[in-house]
Amino acid sequence: MPETVFEVDTESPPDEQPDPIVNRWHPDVPPVSSIEPGEKVRIECLDWTGGQVNNDDSANDIRDMELDPNHHLSGPFEVEGAEPGDMLVVDILDLGAFPDHEWGFNAIFDQENGGGFLTDHFPEARKSIWELDGVMASTRHIEDVRFPGCAHPGILGTAPSQELLEEWNERERALIERGPDDPTAVNHETGEAEPPLALPPEPNDVLLGDMDDDQVDDAAEEAARTIPPRENAGNCDIKNLGRGSRVYLPVFVDGANFIVGDLHFSQGDGEISFCGAIEFPGWIDLKVDVIKDGMEKMGTDYAMFKPGYMDPDFSNYVVFEGYSVDEDGTQHYKNANIGMRRACLDAIDYMTNFGYSAEQAYMLLSTAPVESRIAGIVDLPNTCVTVSVPQEIFEFDVDPDRLADGGPDESRGDVAKTS
Amino acid sequence: MPETVFEVDTESPPDEQPDPIVNRWHPDVPPVSSIEPGEKVRIECLDWTGGQVNNDDSANDIRDMELDPNHHLSGPFEVEGAEPGDMLVVDILDLGAFPDHEWGFNAIFDQENGGGFLTDHFPEARKSIWELDGVMASTRHIEDVRFPGCAHPGILGTAPSQELLEEWNERERALIERGPDDPTAVNHETGEAEPPLALPPEPNDVLLGDMDDDQVDDAAEEAARTIPPRENAGNCDIKNLGRGSRVYLPVFVDGANFIVGDLHFSQGDGEISFCGAIEFPGWIDLKVDVIKDGMEKMGTDYAMFKPGYMDPDFSNYVVFEGYSVDEDGTQHYKNANIGMRRACLDAIDYMTNFGYSAEQAYMLLSTAPVESRIAGIVDLPNTCVTVSVPQEIFEFDVDPDRLADGGPDESRGDVAKTS
Amino acid sequence: MPETVFEVDTESPPDEQPDPIVNRWHPDVPPVSSIEPGEKVRIECLDWTGGQVNNDDSANDIRDMELDPNHHLSGPFEVEGAEPGDMLVVDILDLGAFPDHEWGFNAIFDQENGGGFLTDHFPEARKSIWELDGVMASTRHIEDVRFPGCAHPGILGTAPSQELLEEWNERERALIERGPDDPTAVNHETGEAEPPLALPPEPNDVLLGDMDDDQVDDAAEEAARTIPPRENAGNCDIKNLGRGSRVYLPVFVDGANFIVGDLHFSQGDGEISFCGAIEFPGWIDLKVDVIKDGMEKMGTDYAMFKPGYMDPDFSNYVVFEGYSVDEDGTQHYKNANIGMRRACLDAIDYMTNFGYSAEQAYMLLSTAPVESRIAGIVDLPNTCVTVSVPQEIFEFDVDPDRLADGGPDESRGDVAKTS
Amino acid sequence: MPETVFEVDTESPPDEQPDPIVNRWHPDVPPVSSIEPGEKVRIECLDWTGGQVNNDDSANDIRDMELDPNHHLSGPFEVEGAEPGDMLVVDILDLGAFPDHEWGFNAIFDQENGGGFLTDHFPEARKSIWELDGVMASTRHIEDVRFPGCAHPGILGTAPSQELLEEWNERERALIERGPDDPTAVNHETGEAEPPLALPPEPNDVLLGDMDDDQVDDAAEEAARTIPPRENAGNCDIKNLGRGSRVYLPVFVDGANFIVGDLHFSQGDGEISFCGAIEFPGWIDLKVDVIKDGMEKMGTDYAMFKPGYMDPDFSNYVVFEGYSVDEDGTQHYKNANIGMRRACLDAIDYMTNFGYSAEQAYMLLSTAPVESRIAGIVDLPNTCVTVSVPQEIFEFDVDPDRLADGGPDESRGDVAKTS
Repeated sequence: MPETVFEVDTESPPDEQPDPIVNRWHPDVPPVSSIEPGEKVRIECLDWTGGQVNNDDSANDIRDMELDPNHHLSGPFEVEGAEPGDMLVVDILDLGAFPDHEWGFNAIFDQENGGGFLTDHFPEARKSIWELDGVMASTRHIEDVRFPGCAHPGILGTAPSQELLEEWNERERALIERGPDDPTAVNHETGEAEPPLALPPEPNDVLLGDMDDDQVDDAAEEAARTIPPRENAGNCDIKNLGRGSRVYLPVFVDGANFIVGDLHFSQGDGEISFCGAIEFPGWIDLKVDVIKDGMEKMGTDYAMFKPGYMDPDFSNYVVFEGYSVDEDGTQHYKNANIGMRRACLDAIDYMTNFGYSAEQAYMLLSTAPVESRIAGIVDLPNTCVTVSVPQEIFEFDVDPDRLADGGPDESRGDVAKTS
Repeated sequence: MPETVFEVDTESPPDEQPDPIVNRWHPDVPPVSSIEPGEKVRIECLDWTGGQVNNDDSANDIRDMELDPNHHLSGPFEVEGAEPGDMLVVDILDLGAFPDHEWGFNAIFDQENGGGFLTDHFPEARKSIWELDGVMASTRHIEDVRFPGCAHPGILGTAPSQELLEEWNERERALIERGPDDPTAVNHETGEAEPPLALPPEPNDVLLGDMDDDQVDDAAEEAARTIPPRENAGNCDIKNLGRGSRVYLPVFVDGANFIVGDLHFSQGDGEISFCGAIEFPGWIDLKVDVIKDGMEKMGTDYAMFKPGYMDPDFSNYVVFEGYSVDEDGTQHYKNANIGMRRACLDAIDYMTNFGYSAEQAYMLLSTAPVESRIAGIVDLPNTCVTVSVPQEIFEFDVDPDRLADGGPDESRGDVAKTS
Repeated sequence: MPETVFEVDTESPPDEQPDPIVNRWHPDVPPVSSIEPGEKVRIECLDWTGGQVNNDDSANDIRDMELDPNHHLSGPFEVEGAEPGDMLVVDILDLGAFPDHEWGFNAIFDQENGGGFLTDHFPEARKSIWELDGVMASTRHIEDVRFPGCAHPGILGTAPSQELLEEWNERERALIERGPDDPTAVNHETGEAEPPLALPPEPNDVLLGDMDDDQVDDAAEEAARTIPPRENAGNCDIKNLGRGSRVYLPVFVDGANFIVGDLHFSQGDGEISFCGAIEFPGWIDLKVDVIKDGMEKMGTDYAMFKPGYMDPDFSNYVVFEGYSVDEDGTQHYKNANIGMRRACLDAIDYMTNFGYSAEQAYMLLSTAPVESRIAGIVDLPNTCVTVSVPQEIFEFDVDPDRLADGGPDESRGDVAKTS
Repeated sequence: MPETVFEVDTESPPDEQPDPIVNRWHPDVPPVSSIEPGEKVRIECLDWTGGQVNNDDSANDIRDMELDPNHHLSGPFEVEGAEPGDMLVVDILDLGAFPDHEWGFNAIFDQENGGGFLTDHFPEARKSIWELDGVMASTRHIEDVRFPGCAHPGILGTAPSQELLEEWNERERALIERGPDDPTAVNHETGEAEPPLALPPEPNDVLLGDMDDDQVDDAAEEAARTIPPRENAGNCDIKNLGRGSRVYLPVFVDGANFIVGDLHFSQGDGEISFCGAIEFPGWIDLKVDVIKDGMEKMGTDYAMFKPGYMDPDFSNYVVFEGYSVDEDGTQHYKNANIGMRRACLDAIDYMTNFGYSAEQAYMLLSTAPVESRIAGIVDLPNTCVTVSVPQEIFEFDVDPDRLADGGPDESRGDVAKTS
């Protein structure tokens, strides 16, 4: 086993961990340790909420979630010799759950507290608890599904330089100031603009590792939230960053100051329910290396990667097509988000033919290895987005041809609700 | 061979074809023939431009393309017994080029005449001519690439009912009237709104099959353009609708009035260059069946499908990540289109490391079996879109690890330009 | 379409074809035409029996098959500049059925006339007729299965040199003289040696193309039968030599004298029923090139290849394990053939749970894209062979977990028998 | 983490383990513990040699290996309620190396002490030590290869009944008495019969768990060796029994008495070097269930399984073809073993084009996810076997087309030898 360079304790709160948790992006967070190029390390991670979710049958914890302190991440790690302009090469060797904590959760956030991609259809907090059996996932809250997870880190990234951090803050602040010029920023039910458009720095609940106390206050005012992915990768939530992947991350500060966390046991493209993968605390083994001047040599200033060869290999899909017309019949201009929304809604309707509740189906789209592709993006005004659901995840036959005689009228349990 | 129920002649203009071409959606276009459920048929198709593109080394034909008469389609075909509310089941058995016409084309449209997804970066007309060798495609205009095509129809669909047609016209007209409220409707270079937002009915160059002359004038005023995909599928441009696929299409009029065309030899997700697949005239063999009351039984009023098992099976990808920040650094709100734009631009930059021009790279993204996924859509304000390029399409090594010592400094030809 | 360099007429007997059929390997068969390196050609092929099988419901034609004239092949083709020691590079671009002949056949040969891998269990002639719908195959003789075919040529090869021909004849004659020292050469039911062990040159029914009459008699006495695969590839019956494959064939005579035929629409590993794939007459498009001194450069004197990326991509298999113990319980020494036999017999038993007759199941193993792997070959005395049946070929659920409550008691038709 | 029901200590000899090791099949070995249907358990396993191999650069340990005590296995485990005629359902949830022992070994055994599939070509003991990094394997003894492993248990099985044990002993003894009637039992170099043909019970070094001392002597005389796979699965060495697989094992005694071990990090089909996978000690997590009367319901008395969806998914293969003619040019009758031998020898020759020694290439075929298929088994006298090597395992380009200009003349290290 590679040396463990970051330890967590799932029984303790985030601010009492063996190694200091970080929950913002800032160039001056001091590294917790240093890694040599070519070295392999094990890094332990809290779940992204820092342990706010319980393995029970109530969604109250989801409803009452504290959002400001998220995500709870591990790092930063200095990589020796890495300099701005280099590419960090991160091999994802393996990841898994702690032996005494082999469960994860998926949740629909309350519309007033986080929301989600389809929050106007699913405004109330809901939860499912997933059993993690080796590579297999299943849940008492959605019966008769069982699938191998494409486990991956939701977040991995390098620290921004001070310049890049300012650029982030500036452009996101400008968006907030511009206000909701985008139709997808409008709540479909209420017709009201859906705040927030972006998340400005939030000093509340900030965790900046071992940063000196006299530095923290200033840093907290400008440190970037970890919610969005950006040039440094960050919260990219790419389900294909699984075991065996090799990730190339631009370096913006000396030492790269690499951070990782937000482990996902499995996720569908889009991570649509927002607390959206099968979320779990655990460990990840990485090998880290450096390509000098890699940004120039590769011609990119964003992260890129090569997927491994171990993702679940399904071949039998049911595919739903969505276009840029919203549920009210309003036509939007080449809007892929609305295309995806419509495809998801059709997929949910489809699954309810088999005895699932709409909330169960929504969670399945968010957690199972579902593919969402931008199929056609030039055919104005309708972008076509496809959502592909693998039939192999179900323990019974969900083929459309079986529906010619009607679907089975069975209950398959239900998700956890609030009380 | 199934009976040929629609013939075309690639040497003749669209309005002098053996069977009458249709280029609009309208419920009253009379069927050219009738198909029994369970029957297999061969349907011949012009390329979508109706033969406006030549196999030569000049992009003048692209620059001067007549757009109003597109797409040139085959049908409608009545399916016996199909009624509104049913689902039409269409098996895509095979498709291919005509023996005397085994070439296709890809093009970048001029910004003033059609444009494309990255038109502000690629404003001038360009063309590549592809040699179709059985299942393999290659082009003299982009050297050292060769790949099996995921051949599919860009367009297949059922006729709208009069009500649905009116709904389409109304919602698209409303969008035009609302004007460009969407940031992706703004030309990135000029900062000006990019018309058109949608294409209203265009009586010019209308082809409505054998519709009576006294009907045509009225119908032409309301018949819907075939550019966008809609509830009836239509121009969905889904690259995975290949051989062996089974498509379920909602039926809106008695007889379904099925139409097909716009054959693609291969296409990348998004079809980004707009004339965007490897476009070719050819034949398609289909088997057609009906599920009574299928829309209710399946719980969908959009098209859905099951892909075949014959798509090119690649495993070795280079993947680029894009977020909702445009090239100027402006932050947009969860905009997947901009995420895709940025991922495409990075992929193009990457390919120029290996001796390709940016235009060649743009065309490769549009034609090869490239995957574009909406990876994360809830992490405001940045939607993450990935663009995955299969390394197997290149006849040399394009692995990122090879770039540690710099890319090869070779010319690989270039695309056709205007004179 | 590439130029057709070899024509056949499925309505005429093999010796009255437009181009002369060849059914033996001999260095002196004169080429029917010449191909330049880099050229693409279309070659038409009879089915391997030369048209002896009818599309009907009787297996009498199988029972009465003339075996001496098989296989009926197309060629030889001279490749300009190819010399002994070179490697011929053959790209398989596409292949398909004739428009007026879109059906194929599979057969179990009578034990007295050809037999098959499990002839002691299936001693009587049986037949199934397959409908070829684009890439999809189905048969009225085995209901509720339907799958995309991995179409390929059963035979392709280069002419042997005179020296190599003599080596073949000598070593095969030696085997016949040595007699049945191998337990798999013993009929399992009768305990008797199962002749023949090999097929010596058979002057009867010889077809040597346009060879001069005064040469033919001598050549017929030594020309090699086309039944076995050998150094020149020949009847290798590799199901993965599909569209998009690139084959490297050693060159033994000036001009290579390439021959092709025995088209298969689909085949399971092993081609176990002997007339064992879905056999059909049709056309194949090839591109041919030469690597000078390729045998030395590649370090092989046998054929090798790269498969295409278009084979049916299944992921949901039921796998059967067989070991080197025969049905009587006799232990054999690391015998893979017996391992495969036992795995096949178990797979057949399994399929009879679902309403298929054993003969239907035997034919499915032989025709569908079934994988047969030598899993372990060093664990004396039992070689382990696995036979993997894709569940996706069935139009109903054949998962082993469904059998906990017993299999469905349905008839699914039956194969054609003799009268 | 499931409860650990069997512990091992890699620092202690096999007979001083925390739980008693078993190295023979016998119905009366008492269960070490009992598992309820539906229960998940963790089972630790020694490597199959019980720790006889060191992580060093000498193959002396391989040369001097004690073979009689192998394999060192974990169990038996009683499954509550399982009875003869049932099927045991074993889900392979995950497996991995111990944190302090993340390395494995592959070896070529000395011809005088174990040998291997190609022992006449590779008669001397050789070894490679593999580094296990999460799911990735690499070795200092074979440079420039690195691949994800298809980790699996080489051995898992149920105890034989007394009747079945006697049948095994009888049939294997009969083979030994019959003598080498099989050509593959003859050493290719010496022409001498290659003993042993099978391994009769060997009381030396027997380990029968907690069996009473007064029982052990008798049992040792009849307990079956664990080398061959048999009806109970056992040492089946199937590389596709990886994470997510579901295995069905016939039950022959009350409680099933399940045994597992011989963990492989990765293996090529055939496991040809005999110590042939990447062998390692570690843990395996299983879920166990029972199908009552499963043998009858499934129609099989051998083991069967469904593979998981997590095997490495490669698509770019170089494939070698072998036929039943041995290296001396002797023709054999439909002998798949000789076909595989020839394909392997060609694959080895091919890899030496790139700077590998033949021994390195032999070990790669044995350890990497290489596919060996019985392509054609009815074309007498030559069975065609294909061996497919994934190009993706190499960190440089091994495409045959690159060899047109000759292979790279580089050293890539070498395997460990004896001193």
